[in-house]
Parts: sequence; structure tokens; C-alpha cells
Amino acid sequence: NDLEEPTHQELLCIFGTGDFGRSLGQRLLQSGYRVVYGSRRPHSCGPLPQGAQVMSHTAAAAQSASLVFVCIHREHYDFLETLAPELKGKVLVDVSNNLKKNLYPEANAEYLQRLIPGAHVVKAFNTLSAWALQNGPSDASRQVYLCGNSAEAKEAVSEVATKLGLTVLDRGSLTAARELEDFPLQLFPEWRLPLRLAASLAAAFFFYLLIRDVVYAYAEEGKDISFRIMVSLANKVFPIVSLIMLALCYLPGVIAAFLQLYRGTKYKRFPDWLDRWMLCRKQLGLLALAFASLHVLYTLIIPIRYYVRFKIAESTISKIKENKTSVFDTTLAWRADSYYSMGILGYALYVLLGITSLPSVSNALSWREFSFIQSKLGYLTLFFCTLHTYLYGGSRFLSPSTYKWYTPPGYILSLVVPSVVLVLKLLIILPCVDRTLTRIRRGWERTDPEDDTKKSLLT
Amino acid sequence: NDLEEPTHQELLCIFGTGDFGRSLGQRLLQSGYRVVYGSRRPHSCGPLPQGAQVMSHTAAAAQSASLVFVCIHREHYDFLETLAPELKGKVLVDVSNNLKKNLYPEANAEYLQRLIPGAHVVKAFNTLSAWALQNGPSDASRQVYLCGNSAEAKEAVSEVATKLGLTVLDRGSLTAARELEDFPLQLFPEWRLPLRLAASLAAAFFFYLLIRDVVYAYAEEGKDISFRIMVSLANKVFPIVSLIMLALCYLPGVIAAFLQLYRGTKYKRFPDWLDRWMLCRKQLGLLALAFASLHVLYTLIIPIRYYVRFKIAESTISKIKENKTSVFDTTLAWRADSYYSMGILGYALYVLLGITSLPSVSNALSWREFSFIQSKLGYLTLFFCTLHTYLYGGSRFLSPSTYKWYTPPGYILSLVVPSVVLVLKLLIILPCVDRTLTRIRRGWERTDPEDDTKKSLLT
Amino acid sequence: NDLEEPTHQELLCIFGTGDFGRSLGQRLLQSGYRVVYGSRRPHSCGPLPQGAQVMSHTAAAAQSASLVFVCIHREHYDFLETLAPELKGKVLVDVSNNLKKNLYPEANAEYLQRLIPGAHVVKAFNTLSAWALQNGPSDASRQVYLCGNSAEAKEAVSEVATKLGLTVLDRGSLTAARELEDFPLQLFPEWRLPLRLAASLAAAFFFYLLIRDVVYAYAEEGKDISFRIMVSLANKVFPIVSLIMLALCYLPGVIAAFLQLYRGTKYKRFPDWLDRWMLCRKQLGLLALAFASLHVLYTLIIPIRYYVRFKIAESTISKIKENKTSVFDTTLAWRADSYYSMGILGYALYVLLGITSLPSVSNALSWREFSFIQSKLGYLTLFFCTLHTYLYGGSRFLSPSTYKWYTPPGYILSLVVPSVVLVLKLLIILPCVDRTLTRIRRGWERTDPEDDTKKSLLT
Repeated sequence: NDLEEPTHQELLCIFGTGDFGRSLGQRLLQSGYRVVYGSRRPHSCGPLPQGAQVMSHTAAAAQSASLVFVCIHREHYDFLETLAPELKGKVLVDVSNNLKKNLYPEANAEYLQRLIPGAHVVKAFNTLSAWALQNGPSDASRQVYLCGNSAEAKEAVSEVATKLGLTVLDRGSLTAARELEDFPLQLFPEWRLPLRLAASLAAAFFFYLLIRDVVYAYAEEGKDISFRIMVSLANKVFPIVSLIMLALCYLPGVIAAFLQLYRGTKYKRFPDWLDRWMLCRKQLGLLALAFASLHVLYTLIIPIRYYVRFKIAESTISKIKENKTSVFDTTLAWRADSYYSMGILGYALYVLLGITSLPSVSNALSWREFSFIQSKLGYLTLFFCTLHTYLYGGSRFLSPSTYKWYTPPGYILSLVVPSVVLVLKLLIILPCVDRTLTRIRRGWERTDPEDDTKKSLLT
Repeated sequence: NDLEEPTHQELLCIFGTGDFGRSLGQRLLQSGYRVVYGSRRPHSCGPLPQGAQVMSHTAAAAQSASLVFVCIHREHYDFLETLAPELKGKVLVDVSNNLKKNLYPEANAEYLQRLIPGAHVVKAFNTLSAWALQNGPSDASRQVYLCGNSAEAKEAVSEVATKLGLTVLDRGSLTAARELEDFPLQLFPEWRLPLRLAASLAAAFFFYLLIRDVVYAYAEEGKDISFRIMVSLANKVFPIVSLIMLALCYLPGVIAAFLQLYRGTKYKRFPDWLDRWMLCRKQLGLLALAFASLHVLYTLIIPIRYYVRFKIAESTISKIKENKTSVFDTTLAWRADSYYSMGILGYALYVLLGITSLPSVSNALSWREFSFIQSKLGYLTLFFCTLHTYLYGGSRFLSPSTYKWYTPPGYILSLVVPSVVLVLKLLIILPCVDRTLTRIRRGWERTDPEDDTKKSLLT
Repeated sequence: NDLEEPTHQELLCIFGTGDFGRSLGQRLLQSGYRVVYGSRRPHSCGPLPQGAQVMSHTAAAAQSASLVFVCIHREHYDFLETLAPELKGKVLVDVSNNLKKNLYPEANAEYLQRLIPGAHVVKAFNTLSAWALQNGPSDASRQVYLCGNSAEAKEAVSEVATKLGLTVLDRGSLTAARELEDFPLQLFPEWRLPLRLAASLAAAFFFYLLIRDVVYAYAEEGKDISFRIMVSLANKVFPIVSLIMLALCYLPGVIAAFLQLYRGTKYKRFPDWLDRWMLCRKQLGLLALAFASLHVLYTLIIPIRYYVRFKIAESTISKIKENKTSVFDTTLAWRADSYYSMGILGYALYVLLGITSLPSVSNALSWREFSFIQSKLGYLTLFFCTLHTYLYGGSRFLSPSTYKWYTPPGYILSLVVPSVVLVLKLLIILPCVDRTLTRIRRGWERTDPEDDTKKSLLT
């Protein structure tokens, strides 16, 4: 039998028996390493994974393990200084995180390196949770970011990470440690701008409609319809914000296309604001979907509302009392049903877009499939939803009674951006424009690119 | 050219040409191995992957392949005994599973080892399906559990698995084979307790409400309202169970916090029941979401029900006949609309919690983001849903007519657990309590931890 | 310190500074490689990842990098011919894709090989998008397909891919390049058949019902009810198509079972049409779910439709005018409520099936769990939905007035396939049939399989 002796019976050391230390140890043992724990209280440190040894920090450090995982809070680092002789030449893996950004003047890993200058400190594993380690890489983020000053030390840590089924991304020297330590503290950075936008739009339209509807009714007609805030008003604000946000998803794309057409090249960078805008399209779209879903739910409960039932009963009663015979209006039926149909189809496509933006679904799609859905179906969604809103308005656009206090109703305001986007998109897909744009996107430039090619070949 | 000769033209042998054998062979060929099949009927064994050879078991076994995958049902293992001389010293990979637990006295892999003592049996790959192998690791679980008595043999199998893009987890010696063989037979073990709880709660409330509503109406008023079982009663049971289950999701968290506060340390283990309870919070929450979704659907179909339409028409007719003029009640409109609004917002957050617990979404979140959603938004959801239920009750709490046969209506019972959880949570986030708890969770202990640190340093 | 010098400071060369080249370079740098770009315009080629060098193609090619990534459009390949001397003996990785299938007589990679015969061309990475490279493997498809004529060259590329956290699948020699280049161009190939089927069914039933409802009303009664196309007609077509598609999901399974029973073996291949049918069951099911969802939305907006409100008001008014007292029909209430309940429960299970077919969810399930949900719960869903449709019909089956122009209503037609599937499934789960089938699926064959075993052992 010529199989070589397995190399994975290597001994690793873990300082600290908290959640993370325990989970890491268990995972290392499962991957075929031997593990020794260094603990403050080796005899009463709670349940450790089966097969691991536990001893005092000094004793553990004196072992032959060349890699030591430091799974201790930064506050307790100082006592490690006394272990400096035992840790000399070893690789120390700093897995720590802080509770807040900028809590300390220097990164934890840099502090550790300063305390034990003789060791090779590598910052790693801090973006993984104990939970992710316990449940294995298939259920958890597989990426390990690491940084450190010693290439050999990083290579050693990266080998362990690979054995654990993780993917390693090297972030350079130990000065990157602060950035790595800030990773787990971030709270939806890419959602902030879209969320703020959504909140501002919602607030603006809420007050606009509050004045137009509730305050107007009170001031001009002396009626208290404040109860309509909870459902009727909300159900006006939500679709308006949703439609505008959806249109804002597709606006940067058409702006970029016109910019490329104007510049005649794709090799110039877009302005920063456009870049940032394009990077948060997914978030804009998902927020738009959330508002649309609220709109759907608020619409569907309409018929069970007390107010609505009361109104319907009243209207029936008054019809009987006045002995009027109302005639069925086929045009109105057409318009109302088309309005609902467009809304439902638009929402169905909306949900489809949302589902395909789930990481596991979008990963299973080829690039062409993804762009087909997000672009073609996306514009179809926008078209359906815009048409839905136009049909909602119907012929009321023309009636002066809708312009209370000389202000247009909310839905007219919400139609501005989507209409602009759809018209611009229509221009772009005109055959002549489309042809030029495709050429530009394939690398063609309006000002003779052959020159440059020649130049570079002559260099 | 100094690139070394690739090592992956290695020959591997597969016994058995069933689904699994075929899929495994195809995958091995794609990863650059050469494959030879051993078959009972080498000339009529159906379509095999292109590029693979097929011969009789004996001939295949005599080949130079050092690894043999045994993709045969355990019932047919006995004939392998005759191949013992050819298989001596080779690594046999047992990929088999059984149809039931405890079907045989010993694990399949142990049985195989007993039949061919000269071979090195490794249990592996049995948790993968043929389908997963065919569709590649990106569409399938990437984890391979293996166990065996020879470290070299395990290393060899683990190398093949890694080449196939899989992650290997070593489970120790061949005695672990039974555990590995039971893996694919498990049927939602972590869902059992929550499902049983949900079923019990639903059954209990169903009978309680059946007696209070249907039996009461029949016994006291002689009316047959049994038809209400299908929708009205179901639509009372579902929200009640949902609210209680959601509260039970958050109850163990507050209990754990109070336990840590009482003990003054986080280093003592929680009692077993609490540990188990905390591990099934996700399942509790998802079941609660399922019941809430049913509640939403049952509520939305209310206005198209025959019974409801009949009642509304009857009430309108009676109003006309009695010539009553009902006055619009603004307070009632406020309460009803707030009730619906709270329900919708609560349900929307509920769905958001559900979406973020999808594996691919939760993996994309940092730890802080995940806990923000599951904790902060989770409590907000519970708050909205509890408020929704309180608003449903309105002032009916006080009316004696709601206490038929001296029993409280179901929704009052459903409010007990959520109210307790919310009050306890409120206590925990009081600044003074919160500060102590945070210190404990960072490792601080009420009974001087410095002693221990010193002790361990002196060891 | 005996850690070996890391091998990953290797130099790699990238031709082209477009999106893909940039993203690839950044990823290579992060994984510890050194990167040099070859550009047409080294001094004005836009922002490149930090740490990368950029020079002219000639200068870059003359570097010591043994691997060159060609991230250039095929149209610009011709100038590479002039670099043939510098590229001799190097590995050229062709990452290019075309805009359409069959745009050129030979694959891009083969063309490149022909231009520079002295280099070792490997086709690889073309299925990855620049976006996937930027965002790391956890957010993107991890599979890299490669092909090439030199095993050493492929091994070198595969090593780089593995370092980048990707999984390599070898597709053989460079003749496979065309197939690989067609990969990213495919647009939902597995969805085509189900989509076509759904579209045909929807169109057929739409025209059938258009004639039966709208045309009939116009021809026989002179009434224009064309407005019903938008909602009422759509809401008849959607559930019909959904139910038939759901049944078509489970029909191939029962056909396969009967075929196995008839043949007495599982080792014979199914006919091609059945194989293809079984492979698109997931797509059939998801489309059925989409139609069911539309049906749910269309149903829930019924009570807010103008037409419905008009009809209800009219019926109330006429009741009062004619002074009729309608009696509450408990049987009808039972039937209507059961009908809604079955629909809701069926839809809830439907959605559950949909959720578990999300890649990330199905990956987290064991094989047995997956088949439990997709088979057991699937049939339950079909049963609920079929029952829902039967209850919808109620006793109208018998009334001659439903057979306008001697045609049956749509829902009766939709019941044919599901009823057949359920009856066949019922036959299969009869104990005696089930026993035989299980034996066959475990490998047993009706015509003595022992003979073959003996034969193969004697060979």
C-alpha cells in the first residue's frame, strides 16, 4: 500500500473555551486535526467537544502546536503577554471582533502583535459565527478573509481554512485588520440609501396626501375623516412609493445608455453618483416590491372594512329610497377590470423578479437568463404597473374636481418618473439607436479605435 | 514547459451500474479520472457514461485501481466475498443506505469489512443522491461525511471527494458507520417537536372553540351553525396558534437572559430543556408564519363567502324594512382600520423574517445583520401581532356576553404568552438590566473572575 | 519555522482591461497572485485593480507569466497573431463568449489555437460573469468548465481556479469549446417545453371559454359581456391550466411505475419522451404554482370589482322590491366553505412545494425529506386541489343548463387528468402492488436475475 501517511493529524491550539472556541474546536476535530484548549479554568470550563484536551494557557502554549487560535475577548489579551516566550515563532490567529467601531485606537490583531512581537499574528475567521462553524460550510458563508504580515503564517492558516471547507481571500498585511474587524459590525450598508429614499418618499407623500385629503375635508367640508389615515391613506402612499422606486431602479440604466451613446465609448467611467445608484438597484427593487406587497394586502382587505361595508349598505339603501335604477356601465366595467388585471399581472411579475434575486436562484441562472429576467421582465413589470396607475386615473385626469387646492392627486405625481423611464427606454430600443449602443458595448468607439490598437502594437 | 504531469488520470473502479454508480462515474470522468465498472452483466447493463469501461466484477477488481466504489445493495454483498483476493489491500468505499433504521444487526460498511477483512473499508458518499452528483455541487449539498479504520484509506477517499468539489468531514472510525447510514433516513428531526406542539395547540383550541361556538349555539339557542367549522372556526384557531407559537419563539430567549442575570455568569450551561427549546426556535417561527399565512388567506376570502353575503344582504334589507338610520361610528372605524393595519404590518414583518431564514439569504447576511432582523424585527413583529389581537378584542373584554358558559373567548387565551414575553423583554431592555446583561455576555462574572485568571496563570 | 515559502506569488497575465479582465484581475490579486495587464492603451485604460501592473500587449506577453488570460472580444483576436513568438509555449485561457450561437464557423478557442499554434489554449471561465467574480464564489456559481488539448495546461488553469475558490469540471479536448461557448447563451432550455405547454393550454381554454361564455351570451341572448374577459374569464383559465399542469407533474411518475411493473425490472431505460417529461416536472410544478397564484389574486379581488358590487346591490334591491324572504341554505354554506377551505389548504401546500424547490432549501434537505415533500405532500396538494374543483362544480354536473351548445364547462375538462392520476396512484399504493414495485426498485427482476449474477462471476 503506497498511500502516504495523512498529514491532517496535526495538533492545533485554541485559547478560550467560549462559544466560538468550542465550535471551532469541534469543526477542527471533525476535519481530522487534534485540538488542545488553553483555558483560564481548565477544570471547570463547561462542555468541550469530545476528543479535545484542555489545559492551562501556559501548558497549552508549550505544546508543539505551531498554530494558536486566540478566541478570547480583547480585554483579556494583556495576560497573553506573560506567555510571550512560549508563543515565540508561532502563528497566532486573532478571531476577535469588537462590539462597536472605533472602540480602540488600534485593531485587535495589531494590539496582539504588539503584545507578542515574536509571534506571527494573522487576522482571520472573525467574519464567521460560532453557529456557522457548527452547522458546516454548506449552511454558512464559506468565505474567510485573512490578513497578516507573514506570508508563511497566512499560508498555514489558509491551509487549515481550506481543510475546513472554507474559501480564503487574502486581504494583505496586518494593517487591513481594522477593516476586517469592521466587517461583522456593518448593518446593511447597501440598504441605507434605498431605505432612506423610501422613507423620505413615504413621508413626503404621506403629508401631501394628509393635507389634500384629511385636512382639506376638515377645512372645506368640516368632516372628520381622520380614520382614513390607517388604511385609505396608507394604501395611497404605498403604491405611489412602490411605483416611483421601481422606476428609479431602471432610470440609471437608461441614463447610462444615453451617456454611452453621447460619449461614443464604454471605456470612460460613469460619474460616481451613477455608479453608486446602479449598485443599489437590487435594493431599490426589493423595497419597491415590499411596498407593492403592502399595497396588495391593503387593497384586499378593503371589502371587509367597516367603513366600506357601511358605505355600500348606505348606497344600496339610498338607491331604494330614491327608487333610482342605475344602469350597468360596460365601459366602466372594462376599465375597472383591466385596472385590476394589470395590477395583478404587474405584481406577479414583480414577485418573479423578487424570487430570482434570491441568491440561490440567481446563482442557478446563466448570465443571459439573469439579465433577461431583470431587464426584459423588469421593464414589462414597470409597464404593467404604470398602465395600472393610468387606468386607475381613467378620465379623472381631466376633471377639475380632482385638483383640490390646485394640487394634483398623488397618483399623477407618481406617474412622472415611470413615464419618463418608459419613453427613454422606447427610444433606446429603436433599431438605429440599439445598433449603435450594441456596438459601443462590444468595445467599438466612435473616435477611431484602430489608431490605439496600432499604437499599442508598436510599443 | 515545466508543468508537471497531471496526477488526475488515476483509475477508479465502481461496482454496480445502478443510478448512483452511473452518476458517480460520470462525475468522476468529468473531474478527470478514468473509470472502470464492474457489473453482473457487463454486456447488458444499460447506458453508462461515455468514456467508462465496463467488465465483469472479477476483471474490474483485478485492475490496478486502488479505490473501489461499492454501489451495490447490501443484499448482494455476499458475492463480493469471492473477490476477496482481488480486493486485498484496496480501499472499498461503501456508499450504501438502507430503507429503514435497524434493519440489520450491523452497519453495511461493517458487514462489508467483515466479508473482506483484507480491504480498507471507508463509509462515504451515502448522504449524496445520484441527482446531486449529476447536477454538480453547486446545486447540491457539498458535504461528504466519511468514516473508516484506516487513516490512509480515508485520506485517499477524501482526496477524490475534494477533486469532485465536495467538502469532507471525518467522523472517525468505522463504528460511526451506523450513524452515517441513518443520516439519509432522518425525516425532519428538528421539526418534530414544533410540529407536535402546533398540532396539539391547534387541536386543543379547535375543540375549545367548537364547544364554545357550535355546541353552545346548538345547546342554548338550537341553531345549527356547524358549517362555520370549515372557515370561521379555522380562522379563529389559526391566528391563535400562530400568535402563541411566535411568542414561544421568543420566550426561551428571555428565560435565558433572566437565567444569566440570576446566575451572574454565561459560563454555566442552560438546562437541557431550554437548550432544546432554543434550537427549535427557527422551526417554531416558520410554523407560526405558516399559520399566519393561512389566517391571512382565510380572512381575505371572507367577503366572497355565501354566508357573509347572505348576512350583509339580510342586514341591509332589515335596515330598510325597519327604516332605521344607522350613524357612522368614527371611533369604530379607527379601531377597525388600526386592527387591520397592525395585522398587515405584523404579517409583512413576519414574511420578512421568513425570507431571511432561507439558507441562501441568511448566509449572505453578516452575523450582526442576522441578529438585528431575527431579534429587533422579531420583537416588533410580536408587538404588532399582539396589538392586532388586542384591537380585535377592543372593548369586548369587559362585556359579560363574551364569556359563554363562563369560558373566555380564544383570542384572550392567545394573548397570555405574548403579553408575558413582551413585558419580560421590556424589563430586559431597561438600561440598568441591559448593562449588566451585556457585561455578563461579554464574559464578566459576578463572583470575581480575576481569581480564576490568576489561578490559570499560575498553573 | 519550517513553513514553506508560499507558492501563490505567481505572476499571471491578463490581456484586455474590460469588465471581465478587471474583475478577474482583482480576484486573482485577492487570492495572492501578482497580475500584469496587457492593454491596447496602457496609459488610458481606465481604473484597474490596485496592485496590478499594466503595459502594452507585447511587453506583458514578454513577461515571465506562464498563464495568459485572453479577455478580449473575438473580433480583436487577429492582432494576437503578431504576438505568437512571445506566447509560444504559454497557456492561453480563452474566456470569450459570443453574442449569438453559430456566429462563426469555429469556436473562439479553436480560432485562437489556430492563430497561435505554439500556445496551449484552454477554454475556461466563460460561464462566469464579471459580477460573479467581483462578489466572490459564495454569491455566484462556483463551477468552472474547462477544455483543452494539453492536460498540463488544463491542470495549471484548474489550479488557479481552485485557488479562486471555484470547482473545476473538465470537459475534455478543445473540440468541446463550442459547447462551452454556447452555455452562457442558453435561455431557460429546461423551461421551454413546460412554458409552451402552459401557453397552449391557456390559449386553448381561453378560446373555448370565450366561445362558451362571451360569444354564447352575445349570440343566444344578445348580451355584451365582453368585459368579463379581463377578470372572470382569466380566473377560469388560470385554475384550469394550473390543475392540469399539476396533474401532469405527477402523471409521468405513475406511468413510470406501471411501466416498471409491466416490465418487471428497473434496469430497462424509459422511453425518451418519458425521460424528458420526468426531467421537466419541477418546471411544470412551478408554472402550475404561478397559475394558481394568479387564480388566488384574481379570486381575492372579486368583491372589489365594480361588476360584482353592482350585481350584489341589484340583487338586494330586487329582493326588497319583490319582498321575497330568502332562506339560509346550510348545505350550500357547508359546500361553499369547504370549497374555499380546500382551495386555501391546497394552495398553502402548493406554496410549500414551491419553497422547498428553491435550490438553497432543497440542498438543506436530506434525500428522504425531499422525496417526502415532493411526493407525499405533492399528491396531497393534487388531492386538495382536485377536491376543490369538484366542490366548485357541486351538483351542477347534472344540470343540463351548464352544457351550453352541448359543450361541458371548463372545470369539468380540467378534472380529467387529475382524476386519472389520483386513481392510478391509488392503485399503486395498494399493498400488493406497492410490495412488488418496491422490490423492483430495489433491484429485483421478474426473470431470474441469479443467472446473470452467476454468469458475471464466472467470467
